[in-house]
Amino acid sequence: MELLQNTLKKIKPLHEESMENVRARQNTLTKPPGSLGRLEDLSVQLAGIQRKTMPDLTHKAIFTFAGDHRVVFEEGIASAPIEITAQQVVNFTKGGGAVNALAGYCGARVVIIDMGVATAYEGAGVVKNKNVGKGASNISKGRAMTREQAIQSLEGGIESVLEEIEKGLDIIGVGEMGIGNTTPSSAIYSLYTGLSPESVTGPGAGIPEEVIRKKVEVIKRALQVNKPDKNDAIDVLSCIGGFEIGGMAGAMLAAAANSIPVVVDGFISTAAACLARSLNPLVDEYLILSHHSAETGFVHASEHLEKKPLLDLGLRLGEGTGAALGISLAEASLVALRDMATFQEAGLSDI
Amino acid sequence: MELLQNTLKKIKPLHEESMENVRARQNTLTKPPGSLGRLEDLSVQLAGIQRKTMPDLTHKAIFTFAGDHRVVFEEGIASAPIEITAQQVVNFTKGGGAVNALAGYCGARVVIIDMGVATAYEGAGVVKNKNVGKGASNISKGRAMTREQAIQSLEGGIESVLEEIEKGLDIIGVGEMGIGNTTPSSAIYSLYTGLSPESVTGPGAGIPEEVIRKKVEVIKRALQVNKPDKNDAIDVLSCIGGFEIGGMAGAMLAAAANSIPVVVDGFISTAAACLARSLNPLVDEYLILSHHSAETGFVHASEHLEKKPLLDLGLRLGEGTGAALGISLAEASLVALRDMATFQEAGLSDI
Repeated sequence: MELLQNTLKKIKPLHEESMENVRARQNTLTKPPGSLGRLEDLSVQLAGIQRKTMPDLTHKAIFTFAGDHRVVFEEGIASAPIEITAQQVVNFTKGGGAVNALAGYCGARVVIIDMGVATAYEGAGVVKNKNVGKGASNISKGRAMTREQAIQSLEGGIESVLEEIEKGLDIIGVGEMGIGNTTPSSAIYSLYTGLSPESVTGPGAGIPEEVIRKKVEVIKRALQVNKPDKNDAIDVLSCIGGFEIGGMAGAMLAAAANSIPVVVDGFISTAAACLARSLNPLVDEYLILSHHSAETGFVHASEHLEKKPLLDLGLRLGEGTGAALGISLAEASLVALRDMATFQEAGLSDI
Repeated sequence: MELLQNTLKKIKPLHEESMENVRARQNTLTKPPGSLGRLEDLSVQLAGIQRKTMPDLTHKAIFTFAGDHRVVFEEGIASAPIEITAQQVVNFTKGGGAVNALAGYCGARVVIIDMGVATAYEGAGVVKNKNVGKGASNISKGRAMTREQAIQSLEGGIESVLEEIEKGLDIIGVGEMGIGNTTPSSAIYSLYTGLSPESVTGPGAGIPEEVIRKKVEVIKRALQVNKPDKNDAIDVLSCIGGFEIGGMAGAMLAAAANSIPVVVDGFISTAAACLARSLNPLVDEYLILSHHSAETGFVHASEHLEKKPLLDLGLRLGEGTGAALGISLAEASLVALRDMATFQEAGLSDI
């Protein structure tokens, strides 16, 4: 609890002076003012987060938090066997996942964290072991985890980021792997947006229409049985969350506390962002939503966070794949800021 | 005329077998089928264009076509002095433009082509000289150029691409520089979409509301005075186009004729795409719209082309900056296709 409390206390508002300096520089570059649109805004945000006039993204990492969810297997709404979570973790350690490919594209290292994988797997050496339990419990019948486990999962996420800082960490992407984790995420969306489970529940990795209806019922029961207190994010996490969701929220808090920008991946990561924001609203300014997830109801969570994602490419894969694309755009924004000539340097008449 | 005719004749439909192979491979990769959304579609399109199962983007280039437009200066609707076009061309040769920065980001070389710059400039050695005239004529009083000049500008664009193929060319971005070139572009949008000039005319690089009203009147007069025949793209180009717009359309045709994907930049490039498509509808399948330009009415042209841009970041800069971001996403789509493990390779249960 102390690590969590200290992390929450350490988060500062963005650095106004650095943002002002970047805004000023953007207006001296050889282009009509504002014509790089959201890339300009992004460069300003990154400056405010890193507290420097020329932000630097040399060291990039995508954190992929893995965990299982007993509810989807016990209630018959899973899109795939529970073993897939562990098998994909192993696939990531070997570099074969979509997240590995796209992390390579954006020049990020992949950090895999076992927050709550249920099945045993080989090759665990590469994976950070922060396992809090062998899968979250069936939320339609009771809590996903104890309050202590919720704190432990948040702190596991915090530790994961802190351990990586010494290797260099200028920006992070936060993603996940966990068969069934759209179910707790939709429950969290429903709670924070106040919308019905129907409007924020979709096919996840791909379940048919009749199973979606069952999934909605499961989510309704989870909210009724547990009655999470939306003003207490630790209660929400323990009632209807998951270990990897806690890990993601913790990672976001730790990054914010250490002036590191956070690129949020997709549907599940955005549920974690809702939790992180509830724990400390200042974390908001450190978050960059990478893409508009194709999963039903994503837009309501992004509106709840008052943030517009950078991309809308119909992705619904998770792992940190969208975050990788977002990190690449963050890089583009800084390349323009750094490499363009000013009107004075170019000897141009002011446009 | 022969070069143009031969180029038009050389454009083939996309290669179905390569596309089928990529679709099949996408379904064997360790992710739910279709979960990479438009990145998957993009990889299929690139395969069809390059006519190979594993497309390759080793050699990338952004073509920036420059030209001036007398109409905006003679009618008092320019956002900046005419010299800026030439000054920016020089800025690009020195690597100081936004397009240089973002081409660096996506690993493309920048090819600058003078199609019709009005003012003299130094350092022309680096610039391809395809100058057809010192700025297009005042379209509110008569034709932008003769029919011969229209063909010459299309062929200048074709030659520019052909000259670069020997250096290696796996994908191109097509952008422009030309103070005032939203004016002819809006006229072209209005003609092809059938919408009023009001609905497709905006502030360009930044003119106030009352000047936009004047710009709309200028565009109306240009359409009335010239009465371009929308079924004859060469007539459209000569009536209400511009030299760099012709160059861009030519480049798109040449790329398509040589199985090279074309990433279209923004508002002006999309006007050129309308011309290219009118000359040969097959060019369509070779075009990738990079981003939703912030300029008024862009959406109508993208709907006319039945294409959805990849990005929507409020860019309104041109030069090829949006194309650079689009090329980067094309690369991402292929990295995933190439580097991800298959279910079999990963020993995963099929999802």
